[in-house]
Amino acid sequence: MSQSINVTVWNEYRHEKASEKVASVYPQGMHTAIAEGLEITGQIRTATLDEPEHGLTEEVLNDTDVLIWWGHMAHGDVQDDIVERVYNRVLKGMGLIVLHSGHFSKIFKKLMGSSCDLKWREADEKERIWVVNPGHPIAEGIGEYIELPKEEMYGEHFDIPQPDELVLVSWFEGGEVFRSGCCYTRGAGKVFYFRPGHETYPTYFNPQVRKVISNAVKWAAPVNREYPKYGNAQPLETIKEKN
Amino acid sequence: MSQSINVTVWNEYRHEKASEKVASVYPQGMHTAIAEGLEITGQIRTATLDEPEHGLTEEVLNDTDVLIWWGHMAHGDVQDDIVERVYNRVLKGMGLIVLHSGHFSKIFKKLMGSSCDLKWREADEKERIWVVNPGHPIAEGIGEYIELPKEEMYGEHFDIPQPDELVLVSWFEGGEVFRSGCCYTRGAGKVFYFRPGHETYPTYFNPQVRKVISNAVKWAAPVNREYPKYGNAQPLETIKEKN
Amino acid sequence: MSQSINVTVWNEYRHEKASEKVASVYPQGMHTAIAEGLEITGQIRTATLDEPEHGLTEEVLNDTDVLIWWGHMAHGDVQDDIVERVYNRVLKGMGLIVLHSGHFSKIFKKLMGSSCDLKWREADEKERIWVVNPGHPIAEGIGEYIELPKEEMYGEHFDIPQPDELVLVSWFEGGEVFRSGCCYTRGAGKVFYFRPGHETYPTYFNPQVRKVISNAVKWAAPVNREYPKYGNAQPLETIKEKN
Amino acid sequence: MSQSINVTVWNEYRHEKASEKVASVYPQGMHTAIAEGLEITGQIRTATLDEPEHGLTEEVLNDTDVLIWWGHMAHGDVQDDIVERVYNRVLKGMGLIVLHSGHFSKIFKKLMGSSCDLKWREADEKERIWVVNPGHPIAEGIGEYIELPKEEMYGEHFDIPQPDELVLVSWFEGGEVFRSGCCYTRGAGKVFYFRPGHETYPTYFNPQVRKVISNAVKWAAPVNREYPKYGNAQPLETIKEKN
Repeated sequence: MSQSINVTVWNEYRHEKASEKVASVYPQGMHTAIAEGLEITGQIRTATLDEPEHGLTEEVLNDTDVLIWWGHMAHGDVQDDIVERVYNRVLKGMGLIVLHSGHFSKIFKKLMGSSCDLKWREADEKERIWVVNPGHPIAEGIGEYIELPKEEMYGEHFDIPQPDELVLVSWFEGGEVFRSGCCYTRGAGKVFYFRPGHETYPTYFNPQVRKVISNAVKWAAPVNREYPKYGNAQPLETIKEKN
Repeated sequence: MSQSINVTVWNEYRHEKASEKVASVYPQGMHTAIAEGLEITGQIRTATLDEPEHGLTEEVLNDTDVLIWWGHMAHGDVQDDIVERVYNRVLKGMGLIVLHSGHFSKIFKKLMGSSCDLKWREADEKERIWVVNPGHPIAEGIGEYIELPKEEMYGEHFDIPQPDELVLVSWFEGGEVFRSGCCYTRGAGKVFYFRPGHETYPTYFNPQVRKVISNAVKWAAPVNREYPKYGNAQPLETIKEKN
Repeated sequence: MSQSINVTVWNEYRHEKASEKVASVYPQGMHTAIAEGLEITGQIRTATLDEPEHGLTEEVLNDTDVLIWWGHMAHGDVQDDIVERVYNRVLKGMGLIVLHSGHFSKIFKKLMGSSCDLKWREADEKERIWVVNPGHPIAEGIGEYIELPKEEMYGEHFDIPQPDELVLVSWFEGGEVFRSGCCYTRGAGKVFYFRPGHETYPTYFNPQVRKVISNAVKWAAPVNREYPKYGNAQPLETIKEKN
Repeated sequence: MSQSINVTVWNEYRHEKASEKVASVYPQGMHTAIAEGLEITGQIRTATLDEPEHGLTEEVLNDTDVLIWWGHMAHGDVQDDIVERVYNRVLKGMGLIVLHSGHFSKIFKKLMGSSCDLKWREADEKERIWVVNPGHPIAEGIGEYIELPKEEMYGEHFDIPQPDELVLVSWFEGGEVFRSGCCYTRGAGKVFYFRPGHETYPTYFNPQVRKVISNAVKWAAPVNREYPKYGNAQPLETIKEKN
């Protein structure tokens, strides 16, 4: 039995209700598909935008080791105080995995400190996601690349801080590349951005995409340690007399 | 003649007016001492909190290549729209050098995406700032370390993202260490955090501290290139017919 | 039950035989003390310089997930072909933890590509090892710092490549700082350098030092995946006719 | 007038003599084309494999600020003592720019500490080199990407240490990506790997490729400072009496 990790999968859950096409791909919502794909030990919850407090109460967040985030058409509807709550939990150690169009979510932009803008195109293009760091735990069990027959294109320049570790880089049929798997630390929390997952494609049923997300959950799980002390501090060594 | 760089030195400029002790160290304000220490080619301006728009009008910022920031007791008085203005200029390429207690400024926290908290102590301690990256341009002309006989202590954990490049690490008499010279990129802009400079010490008259700041200005100056295009993009290659 | 990891603890094992002082601290050799301190699941072996093939046969290395290395007075006696063997295993995924004076071992210098030189002093100084990355798995269960009452000093500049992740920074009584816990990836293998452990001090009996080494073993364990293919490659996409 | 930088362009210079095709592209040798493309202030030399000491005497190297390296078919013919000489100069501060098939040169592998292996294919493929770090000085004056109509393909996994800064990523027609512009520091020296430049294509006449190389020379030029002191060191602070 491996480490127990409590995961909350958060989904905007609007596209699925607004579009027949999306609903036909994800009849139970994208969050359900993502949650079903997780191969981890621990409790798996889902939460969505239109629940009270977006399903992200203090109680839920305090019991969440890793939060997965998918949002797109309604980033602006996420309340600032809930964003602040998630942000503070990340700094205290909660892992955060931001998927696809979540690059423009309030929480990701707040943690990155940059615009997180990019190029995009919806043209049913082939994406090939290459592993550039084969020793990284997020690449475990993945072949040299993941091929997705049809996806939305995201292209550079992707306006993010340089990742602490870059694990995946995408190739797109139309001529672009993209840093698709990016690791960061913010406070005591780990953040992973993972590119694929446009709502009109069955990407979150792909076994290798699911494997990457499960790996990322394990990588992002909090470390068991006391939180650092900040503020005014007594000297640890005797300071010599000053004149 | 080297590259011409327009610098604006921004100072809160409140301590100097509120405290005789500080005024005796920096009678013309800390911004003046910092500005006088710059050995660069280009226009050097100063700006302070109590000027209209904090002295940071659109016109001033658009004509600023590198902005230097010192603030401490009045971070909360900096208007959010001016912070946003500085932030957008940094992403577009303006360099930013954040000094000492500026670690808690709105602009630095916004660019870092973390709490930027730390330990501190005012006890007239000796600080020794070691160069850990001797090939870095910010270390040019600096010896193995800079010794400051009395400074405020800042100690780890310093809650910042891992620097893209770590150039300086401080030793303190009372037993702490601190990452004192930290390089980042945000958007097209470069950001350098430099630790020393408590308002009650003549740190900004120290020739080596001045040399570091001048080096950092040169390092952070914008690169001359077109800004990337973001948003919806046409394919660069022919995308095959889809069925 | 957590992941099973096979560890080999390699020790030069010369000081203990040549010096009564060292023998009194480590009567069974430093390798034994290090091995006994490991809190992991899996097989723990030791190997020493004066065994045939230094105890590092192909068979032993192929069955080793993580190798721990302590050497000092006899770096030159390590055969080049054994160094090459260890090097190739690291690139294929074996973790390597280099301790203290191992900074000057052939294998560490070969993996770093730099001189790995530093300052040093034997003066019974207090060392305080600060955690600068509290979310990192190697910092699990460690307080804000580890205090060692007497150790050899190592000081900057430490001539290593910038670590992929910097976890620990030391403060020394005599006025120096040192990057004491440094993470790297080479090929598919992970490398961790950990500073403390001079042969005349009982450092490897310290519970927090042992905890760091155990954490590092878990962090450095190989990822379960196929090794990348290199060399001439067929195109994955049709390349258009050229004229 | 900007900083004066002495550059030595080193070329294996065998393909040009062995192949009519290569000679027709680079009638004066690739080194001459590269040297002619440099827009810098300072002395520009060339040196080739078949000169005495490969043209890299102590005198030449000591007068070289940045060395550019192109090699391919005769890596094994480069003498180990000359490699050692170049290596020592890099650690002391000389910049090194390694081009294309130089990824497998002795000097690059020695500085990287990994195999530097990769995928490759000669199929007249289009390469598009994307800027992923638009604020980096090596990207100055470059558009969003450089398009080369025909080049050799290099594909991931490229077995290098994670770059300190990643500036360029290539897209290839046949389906691969590659980290094409990679920055490192080794000792006091800066190292830049730049991918394009197969001997059968006129890549080093491309104005944007030339601009990248010129930018890299400026970035890699040594910093003007004293070299760190290593070895046994006196304490900077009084160490308390030990019992």
